[in-house]
Amino acid sequence: MSEEIRSEDKDERADRLASEIADAVVDGDPDSVAQTLAELHPADAADALEQLPRETFETVVEQLGGELPTEILIELRDEYRESAVDVLPDEAVAEALEELDSDDATAILEDLEDERRDRVLEELDPTDRADLEQRMEYGEETAGRLMQREYVAVPEFWTVGQTIDHARELGEELPEQFYEVYVVDPGHRLLGFVLLAQLLRCARDVKLSDIMENLESDISVDLDQEEVAYQFQKYSLASAPVKDETGRLVGMITVDDMVDVIQLENTEDLLALSNVSSADGSHTVWDSVRARSPWLAINLFTAFVASGIIALFEGALDQIVQLAILMPVVAALGGNAGSQGLAVAVRAIAERELQGTAARRAVMREFLTGIVNGVLFAVGVAIIAFVWFRDPELSVVFGAAMFATFVWAGISGILVPLTLKRLGADPAVASSVFVLTMTDIMAFFSFLGLATLVLL
Amino acid sequence: MSEEIRSEDKDERADRLASEIADAVVDGDPDSVAQTLAELHPADAADALEQLPRETFETVVEQLGGELPTEILIELRDEYRESAVDVLPDEAVAEALEELDSDDATAILEDLEDERRDRVLEELDPTDRADLEQRMEYGEETAGRLMQREYVAVPEFWTVGQTIDHARELGEELPEQFYEVYVVDPGHRLLGFVLLAQLLRCARDVKLSDIMENLESDISVDLDQEEVAYQFQKYSLASAPVKDETGRLVGMITVDDMVDVIQLENTEDLLALSNVSSADGSHTVWDSVRARSPWLAINLFTAFVASGIIALFEGALDQIVQLAILMPVVAALGGNAGSQGLAVAVRAIAERELQGTAARRAVMREFLTGIVNGVLFAVGVAIIAFVWFRDPELSVVFGAAMFATFVWAGISGILVPLTLKRLGADPAVASSVFVLTMTDIMAFFSFLGLATLVLL
Repeated sequence: MSEEIRSEDKDERADRLASEIADAVVDGDPDSVAQTLAELHPADAADALEQLPRETFETVVEQLGGELPTEILIELRDEYRESAVDVLPDEAVAEALEELDSDDATAILEDLEDERRDRVLEELDPTDRADLEQRMEYGEETAGRLMQREYVAVPEFWTVGQTIDHARELGEELPEQFYEVYVVDPGHRLLGFVLLAQLLRCARDVKLSDIMENLESDISVDLDQEEVAYQFQKYSLASAPVKDETGRLVGMITVDDMVDVIQLENTEDLLALSNVSSADGSHTVWDSVRARSPWLAINLFTAFVASGIIALFEGALDQIVQLAILMPVVAALGGNAGSQGLAVAVRAIAERELQGTAARRAVMREFLTGIVNGVLFAVGVAIIAFVWFRDPELSVVFGAAMFATFVWAGISGILVPLTLKRLGADPAVASSVFVLTMTDIMAFFSFLGLATLVLL
Repeated sequence: MSEEIRSEDKDERADRLASEIADAVVDGDPDSVAQTLAELHPADAADALEQLPRETFETVVEQLGGELPTEILIELRDEYRESAVDVLPDEAVAEALEELDSDDATAILEDLEDERRDRVLEELDPTDRADLEQRMEYGEETAGRLMQREYVAVPEFWTVGQTIDHARELGEELPEQFYEVYVVDPGHRLLGFVLLAQLLRCARDVKLSDIMENLESDISVDLDQEEVAYQFQKYSLASAPVKDETGRLVGMITVDDMVDVIQLENTEDLLALSNVSSADGSHTVWDSVRARSPWLAINLFTAFVASGIIALFEGALDQIVQLAILMPVVAALGGNAGSQGLAVAVRAIAERELQGTAARRAVMREFLTGIVNGVLFAVGVAIIAFVWFRDPELSVVFGAAMFATFVWAGISGILVPLTLKRLGADPAVASSVFVLTMTDIMAFFSFLGLATLVLL
């Protein structure tokens, strides 16, 4: 409970700091803003800045000019960071790029438009520029983009003592944070790794070749970031080396970047299941409309297909108004059952639980779940309909349609995402529209069709 | 592309190994199973075992007896680990508990029923038992349950050299993996931390007090795991110390456990939004039915409320059959718009982006998005209805209802989760049922109500 309060206080603090900053902006007092920011941890300063409306935030950055500390810049959420980079002068961006680890520098370069990127790269010294330009050639969302060039690699014939001495010599040139030392052959090919904890534990004369461990991960520059994140999770890694196409060690990825990737992939799945296109697409009204209207347009089409099915049974609806009253119940419950199965399947696919025979077992389980829930809810809705309308035939038709829709929902909830995956598509994208359309059509067709056969 | 293939090969390998293991089980040849498992990385061995149907898996564990290596046991997915613990003899479980780091041991203890837990704890030596018993007193899903007791703490007057010598003396007693050393006062209160990378970089005579950094995280034993994960993300931590109520250092949490927590919380949100109750509730048909039927029952109730609204307009439906044909379109599109806003809001709340003034801005944005999409789709559906039925009044009524439902969906999609959060509830749980019911009611009420006023 005390933690709850403390965390609440932190939010209030960010809010309070944000209004202090906003006031200082109105007063045109950038020094006071800079001072407030300097007193905070960069992540907390970024939080406070994100509390500001976007226009105020941009004014702050403009007033600060090149003075927005790079540590804060890199802690900002994507859309705020992009805004900041937009208003910062080229030299300030170039300066930030030189200060940052190469993975963070790449993230900032990605925000820039081509022309400005070239201009900013011009400002850098040739080595940094060549390095960054090469990285931008790796595909988006690959290990090559995420890795940093800063890592520690030593030959296998070295001892623990030599490695520690080497680290002391490098001193501030070492990466600020790293968890393991890579052991390489003369061709800079990876032989294994030694945890820093292990280096600390062993006597100075112990040979690295005696204590190094085999690599668990297997990451090359072109590996997709989702696959990289999976290896981090599977092997509980804090960092991992990255190889180029020829097997040479070229970089290192750290777990904090993987946590961001995991969050991003999760966000994409969750939004895709609810038919929102882009993970970061809701910051302005226009963003929201653009991220949502394409799916609504598709849904518009499928909804009219479903109403076309209803129109086939115009005669039945004309004669029995109860059909119009009850048919949305079949569609709503069936759609809910389908969404449930779909969410479980999408999640299981993301966690790689539906491979090989496990997929076949899951299909069978969803089919049976559809039958069990179908029986339960068919009986339930039939009883309610009977109490309401006192029409036994109508109630039986209603229950039968409910049962058919549940079984159908169960099967489509798992087969649609599995099929999308097999086709190489993202199982979360579009599957919800497919599943809901299929259950709607089944609901209306089975209920109105059975009614036409039995009741007319 | 080559990575795709390699990853596919890995899946196939797990599948092949699983069938080899399954064959060995049928032959009653536990030695061959043990040998296959021993050749694999524990995480890969766990993957292969998870390919087996649950009953075969349990037979494997029974045949292996105490021989299921503890490293594999802890890599298994929750439900497989629980099955394994169920069939392992008490002594094998106790042995596993003694081998594991205390956080993993706690995870296994949590799987046991009270009576068996007491029996297993009896088998342990008194110190281990006391330690584990104390940990089980911390609330579930708190830092106290997640932390390990194994960490390194040293006094601030020590030098880098003394710290390294101390680590060498402890040797194998040190935790296998750690990333930082904690600096404490004589009362074991935290003063700061020194990264191992920093220890390595500095000369032997440098004082820890000169290089230690202030702690960014602030984690005590009773802090909720979601809050802990948030601090890890915010400050990009690989590990963090845990304090007890009096501020004394008592444990350490590492990032690999936090990655699991993040995945779990994400799964819970995604499933909750699709009305599935429990994160791990779909392994048998019975699990699935239990995790889904309560929400279906609630939906059954709300669906009949919506059909009650329809029943109010029986007269209109009786006279104009087109109303029955078109009303599901209003409900489907409105429901889709509501789900979209809801998913964006739930995700933003989870990433703590909707605090303070940001929440007010988000409500305004959703309201305006509802208006913009409402206008677009009201015009769209009205045109389609006009082309279909050639009835201008019906088309206008249809479009107007669509507009009202979109705006309503936009507002409820954001206000429902924000309200649930303010009430201290999980914004993902139940909000989807609320939002869909509210949009259904609005859809039917506005369409049929307007039709009654205008068309009859």
